[in-house]
Amino acid sequence: MGGDVGPEVAIGGAAQSLMRHPDISFLLYGRKDAIEPILAGYPKLAERSQVIDCEVTVEMDEKPSQALRRGRNVSSMWRAIDAVKEGQSDAAVSAGNTGALMAMAMFCLKTMPAIDRPAIAGIWPTLRGESIVLDIGATIGADAKQLLDFALMGGAMARALFEIKKPTVGLVNVGVEEVKGVEQVKEAGKLLREADIDNLEYAGFVEGDDLGRGTVDVFVVEGFTGNIALKTAEGTARQIAEYLRSAMSRTWMTRLGYVLARGAFQMLRDKLDPRKVNGGVFLGLNGIVIKSHGGTDAEGYASAIDVAYDMVHNGLQAKIQHDLNEYHARNESPMGPEAA
Amino acid sequence: MGGDVGPEVAIGGAAQSLMRHPDISFLLYGRKDAIEPILAGYPKLAERSQVIDCEVTVEMDEKPSQALRRGRNVSSMWRAIDAVKEGQSDAAVSAGNTGALMAMAMFCLKTMPAIDRPAIAGIWPTLRGESIVLDIGATIGADAKQLLDFALMGGAMARALFEIKKPTVGLVNVGVEEVKGVEQVKEAGKLLREADIDNLEYAGFVEGDDLGRGTVDVFVVEGFTGNIALKTAEGTARQIAEYLRSAMSRTWMTRLGYVLARGAFQMLRDKLDPRKVNGGVFLGLNGIVIKSHGGTDAEGYASAIDVAYDMVHNGLQAKIQHDLNEYHARNESPMGPEAA
Repeated sequence: MGGDVGPEVAIGGAAQSLMRHPDISFLLYGRKDAIEPILAGYPKLAERSQVIDCEVTVEMDEKPSQALRRGRNVSSMWRAIDAVKEGQSDAAVSAGNTGALMAMAMFCLKTMPAIDRPAIAGIWPTLRGESIVLDIGATIGADAKQLLDFALMGGAMARALFEIKKPTVGLVNVGVEEVKGVEQVKEAGKLLREADIDNLEYAGFVEGDDLGRGTVDVFVVEGFTGNIALKTAEGTARQIAEYLRSAMSRTWMTRLGYVLARGAFQMLRDKLDPRKVNGGVFLGLNGIVIKSHGGTDAEGYASAIDVAYDMVHNGLQAKIQHDLNEYHARNESPMGPEAA
Repeated sequence: MGGDVGPEVAIGGAAQSLMRHPDISFLLYGRKDAIEPILAGYPKLAERSQVIDCEVTVEMDEKPSQALRRGRNVSSMWRAIDAVKEGQSDAAVSAGNTGALMAMAMFCLKTMPAIDRPAIAGIWPTLRGESIVLDIGATIGADAKQLLDFALMGGAMARALFEIKKPTVGLVNVGVEEVKGVEQVKEAGKLLREADIDNLEYAGFVEGDDLGRGTVDVFVVEGFTGNIALKTAEGTARQIAEYLRSAMSRTWMTRLGYVLARGAFQMLRDKLDPRKVNGGVFLGLNGIVIKSHGGTDAEGYASAIDVAYDMVHNGLQAKIQHDLNEYHARNESPMGPEAA
C-alpha cells in the first residue's frame, strides 16, 4: 500500500520481477478492494499470489512511533514483516514510510545477536560497476564497533550480491592517512586492520570521490554522512542532466547532434537510471527487509524485488551470521580480545 | 611555492587575475631563484609585484604541526600570512598544504573574538547559479554554537560574494522535519530560528540533493560531512563525464552527433569546470586567507585570486564582524539570552 503511488506500482513491479524469477510466490498485504482489481490485470501474477486483507495502512508522513502504536499487529506493513518472522515468507519488500518500516522491522524481527543497530545498505553505481554503501540513513552517530559491524555486514552482502569471495571494504573519511578523521572512524580502522576475517579485505580509508570510482566493493560510513553523501550524488546527477538538456537544445546544430547521438544519451540515461539500483537492504535484523524508493514506478519496484530475491537465494542472512560469528570467535575470547 | 606544480601556476594565475583587476599589486613569497625567471615572462605582473625571498617552503605532505615547527616565521607560507596580519597585504592566497595553511593562519592571525573555530567555505555551482557551502573540511565535529557561527559567517560571505542583502541559509540534515537529525543540528536550528539577524534569512533544514539545486544561498554543515559531500559531488561529476565520453564515442553516429553538438559539450564542460569556482575561503580569522586547489592550473589559481579580490573589495571581514556583533548584542545580554 506504500509509496507515493500505491498498489499499482507494487503489483506491476511484482509482475515484472515474476517474469525474471518464475519461482517467486507473493503474499500481498493491503486493502483487498484496492489490490484485487489491479491484480486482475496480471493473471500470471494472480496465480502465484495470495492477498491478505489489512484494513490499516501506514501513512507516508506518519512518525515511526505513531505508526508502531497504530499499526502494530494489524497494518499491512507490520503483517508483511511478521510473515518473515513466522517463516511464511523469505523477505518483505515495501515502498512505504522508511522510518516506520525500520521501526517495525526492528520491533518485530529484532536485531541479530551482537548487532546493536541495523543499517540500510544501498547499491551505488560506479565506474567499475556497482558498490555497496552503508549506512545510508538507518541511524545516526555510529561508534567504532558499529562501523565494524557495518563492514562485516556489508562484506557479507557483497558476497551475496556480487558473488565474489573476498570483497574489499573501505571506511569513508576526510583523508586516506591514518591520522585523519573522527575518532570513531580511526578506531574502526584499527579494529578492521587487526581483525582476521577470511571473507573480507580491509582496504583502509577512502574519500568521497572514491564512491563514483568504485574503488572498493563496500563503503562504510556513519548514517548521517552516508545519507547526505547519497543525496548529494543524486542531486549532482540531476544537476548535470539538467545542464546537458539545456545545452543540447540551444541551437539547431546541437539539436541535430542530439538526434544523431540519441543512442549515447539513452545509454547515459540507463546508466543514471535510479530505478536500476533501487532497493535499500536492511542489514542486521533476523530477516530480510528491502526498502524501495517511495517515488519509484513498477520497473523500480521490480528491481527492489530482484534484490530481495538475490539476497534470499544467495543466503544473505547465513553469510552475515557466519562472518559475525567468525569475527567474534577470533577476536573476543572469554578472557577478552587480548587473549583470543 | 605550493600546489602540485609550483610557482608557474601561482605566477601565471596572478598575471591573469591582474588583467581583470589592474589595481592589484602582489607580494610573491618564495624562492627568488625559482620565481624571478618565471616572472620575467610577465612584464606587466613584474611591474606590480615584489618578490620576497624565502628559503623555507612547506611541503605538500608535511603534517601541520611539523610545518609550523619548521616554517614558523621563515617559510613562504607563514610570511604571506604574516603580511596580512601586519597590514602589508589585504589577503593571502596559497595552493599549498591545506592543513598547514589552516594551522599557520590560526596561529598567526588568530580567530575573531567569539569564534572558536574557523571554517573553510567553498563556492558550489548550482542550477540557480552558485551557493556557499561551509565547512568543507577545516575541522570535524562542530557543535550547535559553531554551526550557528558558520551560518553567520557564511551569510556575511554571501553578502560580499553575491552582493545580496539578505541571503538565505539552510542547515544540511537528513530530513527537513524539525525532529530529524543529530542533536547539534537540531539545536543549531533552534538557535537560528530564535536569532533575530537583519542580514540573514534562516530557511530551515535542507538535504543533500538541495546542494545541486541551490535551494539556499548558504549551506551549513559540519566539516566531516561537508568534506565528504563535496568530494562525493566531484566524484559523481567525473563519473558522469566518463559515462558520457564513453557513450559518445561508441558508434560513428554518436561521434558525428558529438561533433555537431560540440558547442553544447563545451558549455557543459564550462559549467562543470572546477577551475571556475576555485578558492576555499577561510572564515573566522583576523584576516583573509584563500586556499586554491593544489592541482589547479593558472586559470584556476586566477579564480582563487579573484575570490580574494572580491572578499577584500566587498568588505568580508567587516561584514562578518558586523553580523557577529549584532547577533551577540541581541542574543546575549549580561542576564543571559532570555533577558536580551
